[in-house]
Amino acid sequence: MKSVVLLSGGLDSTTTLAMAQKAGFDLFCLTFDYGQRHRVELDRARDIAQHFGAMDHQIVKIDLRQFGGSALTDSIEVPTDRNQEEMSAEIPVTYVPARNTIFLSFCLAYAEVKEASDIFIGVNAVDYSGYPDCRPEFIKAFETLANLATKAGVEGKQSLKIHTPLIELSKAEIIQKGLELGVDYAMTHSCYDPAEGGISCGVCDSCQLRLKGFQEARVKDPIGYK
Amino acid sequence: MKSVVLLSGGLDSTTTLAMAQKAGFDLFCLTFDYGQRHRVELDRARDIAQHFGAMDHQIVKIDLRQFGGSALTDSIEVPTDRNQEEMSAEIPVTYVPARNTIFLSFCLAYAEVKEASDIFIGVNAVDYSGYPDCRPEFIKAFETLANLATKAGVEGKQSLKIHTPLIELSKAEIIQKGLELGVDYAMTHSCYDPAEGGISCGVCDSCQLRLKGFQEARVKDPIGYK
Repeated sequence: MKSVVLLSGGLDSTTTLAMAQKAGFDLFCLTFDYGQRHRVELDRARDIAQHFGAMDHQIVKIDLRQFGGSALTDSIEVPTDRNQEEMSAEIPVTYVPARNTIFLSFCLAYAEVKEASDIFIGVNAVDYSGYPDCRPEFIKAFETLANLATKAGVEGKQSLKIHTPLIELSKAEIIQKGLELGVDYAMTHSCYDPAEGGISCGVCDSCQLRLKGFQEARVKDPIGYK
Repeated sequence: MKSVVLLSGGLDSTTTLAMAQKAGFDLFCLTFDYGQRHRVELDRARDIAQHFGAMDHQIVKIDLRQFGGSALTDSIEVPTDRNQEEMSAEIPVTYVPARNTIFLSFCLAYAEVKEASDIFIGVNAVDYSGYPDCRPEFIKAFETLANLATKAGVEGKQSLKIHTPLIELSKAEIIQKGLELGVDYAMTHSCYDPAEGGISCGVCDSCQLRLKGFQEARVKDPIGYK
């Protein structure tokens, strides 16, 4: 069984990759180089795909800066030191318009070419409640679309399934799950705004969620912070 | 009212653009540079967007060759001199996996950034019955997805509509419609396999459909053929 796994090089997608492997899938990893500020992610993704023995790893270059509209790809300042309530209250400025729709579309193309019937994506509706494209109803709608969009769907050969194993888990639960599967979180990168050498800032939303997750899981985060 | 119009530089998308303009929309054109063999399309798209007074025109570079799987982006031979029955009988080798899903995803991102509520795409279910992602049920599923995927959808501010004004028209009807709207088809390019200087071959599926359309519309095709 072949699966396409969306791999950013972060904590969530790496845990998802371990779960797909545990479920017995051959792994075809897909990473996006979309003009994110933190290119260290791409290097981590390469190492992680190799570590997990992926059959193939594609890095797709797309320019999401072209349209603008997000702090992750624009010059809008990444917010720091916000509390949980502030983070959840609104659609964050780090939201990238239609990002997961675009990412899943490429996963679908890759799955069709490789004849993979399963796509894994580490979206999470708990910590990222503000992102419209992290919700279960969005994923379900994409699955419906995917089965209408492809040759296999038309020929009734194969139905494509989108797996979101993290969608209802807290960060601490994700970390616990990953550790059970032997994930080495030292390989992963989460920071939105890393310093020289890829060192995590410790104060952006993503670092804060990660640190809180490790704290709640009562495990030390193996990466260093500035 | 703002609309995003998917513009390839071909006959169908140019007619769609004219229809969006006629309906009173401001035009934001989106063209893909996806490693197609016929780069002349991109030049035509630029000229056409300018001709129609588009507010903005973005050319998005994505590499669909990376995954393989289509004669339009691979080294698979483009079929020629096939009859209508052969063309309709199967999913053509010129089908690009998940292409319209990817294209519409970028339209959605562009629409969200520009706050456009309408997307126009010149898909056609008559001549391209073999393409799964040209069917009305696919478009409907994407519209559902789009309204779940975006900020506006979540905030209930705006519902996004996908217009497919050509979906049930024959090529001859499309041409007649375009001529009524003053479209100059000499600006458009359809050939899958053009010769030096962008000259159309006259024998590929796309040239054949075009020529047959003009013939049935009893109008001379203003472009030259090899």
